Amino acid sequence: MCEANAYFKSNGQEVLFMESVDVIEPYEDGLKLVDIFGRQKFVKAQIKDMTLLNHRIVLEEKIEAKSDTL
Amino acid sequence: MCEANAYFKSNGQEVLFMESVDVIEPYEDGLKLVDIFGRQKFVKAQIKDMTLLNHRIVLEEKIEAKSDTL
Repeated sequence: MCEANAYFKSNGQEVLFMESVDVIEPYEDGLKLVDIFGRQKFVKAQIKDMTLLNHRIVLEEKIEAKSDTL
Repeated sequence: MCEANAYFKSNGQEVLFMESVDVIEPYEDGLKLVDIFGRQKFVKAQIKDMTLLNHRIVLEEKIEAKSDTL
Protein backbone atom coordinates (compact mmCIF):
# COMPACT_ATOMS: atom_id res chain seq x y z
CA MET A 1 0.00 0.00 0.00
CA CYS A 2 1.28 3.38 -0.93
CA GLU A 3 -0.44 5.66 1.45
CA ALA A 4 1.68 8.21 3.33
CA ASN A 5 1.73 9.91 6.68
CA ALA A 6 1.21 13.65 6.76
CA TYR A 7 3.13 15.78 9.22
CA PHE A 8 2.53 19.42 10.04
CA LYS A 9 5.70 21.40 10.47
CA SER A 10 5.56 24.37 12.76
CA ASN A 11 8.38 26.10 14.61
CA GLY A 12 10.83 23.44 13.47
CA GLN A 13 8.76 20.62 14.94
CA GLU A 14 6.97 18.02 12.87
CA VAL A 15 3.76 16.72 14.34
CA LEU A 16 1.85 13.80 12.85
CA PHE A 17 -1.29 15.24 11.34
CA MET A 18 -2.86 12.27 9.60
CA GLU A 19 -1.87 8.68 8.96
CA SER A 20 -2.45 6.57 5.85
CA VAL A 21 -3.26 9.46 3.54
CA ASP A 22 -4.43 8.47 0.09
CA VAL A 23 -5.85 11.61 -1.53
CA ILE A 24 -4.63 15.18 -1.35
CA GLU A 25 -6.27 18.00 -3.21
CA PRO A 26 -6.65 21.73 -2.88
CA TYR A 27 -9.67 22.85 -0.91
CA GLU A 28 -10.57 26.49 -0.55
CA ASP A 29 -7.46 28.16 0.86
CA GLY A 30 -5.85 24.94 2.04
CA LEU A 31 -5.89 21.21 1.45
CA LYS A 32 -8.25 18.31 1.82
CA LEU A 33 -6.69 15.02 2.89
CA VAL A 34 -8.51 11.71 2.73
CA ASP A 35 -7.11 8.60 4.34
CA ILE A 36 -7.47 5.01 3.14
CA PHE A 37 -10.57 4.62 5.31
CA GLY A 38 -12.26 7.58 3.66
CA ARG A 39 -11.86 9.91 6.62
CA GLN A 40 -11.36 13.52 5.61
CA LYS A 41 -9.39 16.33 7.15
CA PHE A 42 -9.19 19.90 6.02
CA VAL A 43 -6.21 22.03 6.85
CA LYS A 44 -5.15 25.55 5.98
CA ALA A 45 -1.73 24.46 4.84
CA GLN A 46 0.40 23.87 1.82
CA ILE A 47 2.74 21.06 0.93
CA LYS A 48 6.27 21.79 2.07
CA ASP A 49 7.70 18.63 0.62
CA MET A 50 6.68 15.12 -0.13
CA THR A 51 8.70 11.95 -0.62
CA LEU A 52 6.51 9.15 -1.84
CA LEU A 53 9.10 6.40 -1.38
CA ASN A 54 9.36 7.41 2.26
CA HIS A 55 5.55 7.62 2.59
CA ARG A 56 5.98 11.08 3.94
CA ILE A 57 4.19 14.36 3.35
CA VAL A 58 5.20 17.50 5.20
CA LEU A 59 2.70 20.31 5.45
CA GLU A 60 3.34 23.82 6.61
CA GLU A 61 1.25 26.83 7.38
CA LYS A 62 0.07 28.50 4.25
CA ILE A 63 2.16 31.50 3.39
CA GLU A 64 -0.08 34.37 2.43
CA ALA A 65 0.70 36.35 -0.67
CA LYS A 66 3.27 38.97 0.13
CA SER A 67 2.04 42.47 0.58
CA ASP A 68 4.00 45.34 -0.86
CA THR A 69 2.55 47.84 1.54
CA LEU A 70 4.96 49.16 4.13
CA MET B 1 7.65 0.92 -4.81
CA CYS B 2 5.40 3.84 -4.20
CA GLU B 3 6.43 6.31 -6.83
CA ALA B 4 3.68 7.95 -8.89
CA ASN B 5 3.17 9.23 -12.39
CA ALA B 6 2.55 12.93 -12.83
CA TYR B 7 0.12 14.15 -15.45
CA PHE B 8 -0.38 17.69 -16.61
CA LYS B 9 -4.00 18.61 -17.19
CA SER B 10 -4.69 21.25 -19.75
CA ASN B 11 -7.88 21.91 -21.70
CA GLY B 12 -9.44 18.77 -20.29
CA GLN B 13 -6.60 16.55 -21.53
CA GLU B 14 -4.15 14.80 -19.25
CA VAL B 15 -0.68 14.38 -20.64
CA LEU B 16 1.99 12.31 -18.92
CA PHE B 17 4.54 14.77 -17.58
CA MET B 18 6.89 12.58 -15.57
CA GLU B 19 7.00 8.93 -14.59
CA SER B 20 8.14 7.38 -11.31
CA VAL B 21 8.02 10.58 -9.28
CA ASP B 22 9.38 10.32 -5.76
CA VAL B 23 9.78 13.87 -4.48
CA ILE B 24 7.55 16.89 -4.96
CA GLU B 25 8.25 20.23 -3.41
CA PRO B 26 7.51 23.86 -4.10
CA TYR B 27 10.11 25.64 -6.19
CA GLU B 28 9.89 29.34 -6.90
CA ASP B 29 6.43 29.85 -8.39
CA GLY B 30 5.90 26.22 -9.28
CA LEU B 31 7.01 22.73 -8.34
CA LYS B 32 10.12 20.63 -8.47
CA LEU B 33 9.62 16.95 -9.22
CA VAL B 34 12.34 14.36 -8.77
CA ASP B 35 11.95 10.83 -10.05
CA ILE B 36 13.34 7.65 -8.53
CA PHE B 37 16.47 8.00 -10.69
CA GLY B 38 17.18 11.47 -9.35
CA ARG B 39 16.16 13.29 -12.50
CA GLN B 40 14.57 16.66 -11.83
CA LYS B 41 11.88 18.59 -13.61
CA PHE B 42 10.61 22.02 -12.82
CA VAL B 43 7.15 23.11 -13.81
CA LYS B 44 5.07 26.20 -13.25
CA ALA B 45 2.13 24.25 -11.97
CA GLN B 46 0.21 23.34 -8.89
CA ILE B 47 -1.20 20.06 -7.69
CA LYS B 48 -4.77 19.59 -8.86
CA ASP B 49 -5.21 16.29 -7.08
CA MET B 50 -3.21 13.32 -6.03
CA THR B 51 -4.21 9.76 -5.21
CA LEU B 52 -1.31 7.86 -3.75
CA LEU B 53 -2.96 4.45 -3.92
CA ASN B 54 -3.44 4.99 -7.65
CA HIS B 55 0.13 6.30 -8.03
CA ARG B 56 -1.31 9.32 -9.70
CA ILE B 57 -0.57 13.04 -9.45
CA VAL B 58 -2.43 15.54 -11.57
CA LEU B 59 -0.88 18.94 -12.11
CA GLU B 60 -2.53 21.98 -13.59
CA GLU B 61 -1.43 25.38 -14.68
CA LYS B 62 -0.85 27.62 -11.75
CA ILE B 63 -3.75 29.93 -11.16
CA GLU B 64 -2.51 33.43 -10.54
CA ALA B 65 -3.94 35.42 -7.68
CA LYS B 66 -7.13 37.08 -8.80
CA SER B 67 -6.95 40.72 -9.65
CA ASP B 68 -9.74 42.99 -8.58
CA THR B 69 -8.95 45.60 -11.19
CA LEU B 70 -11.51 45.95 -13.94
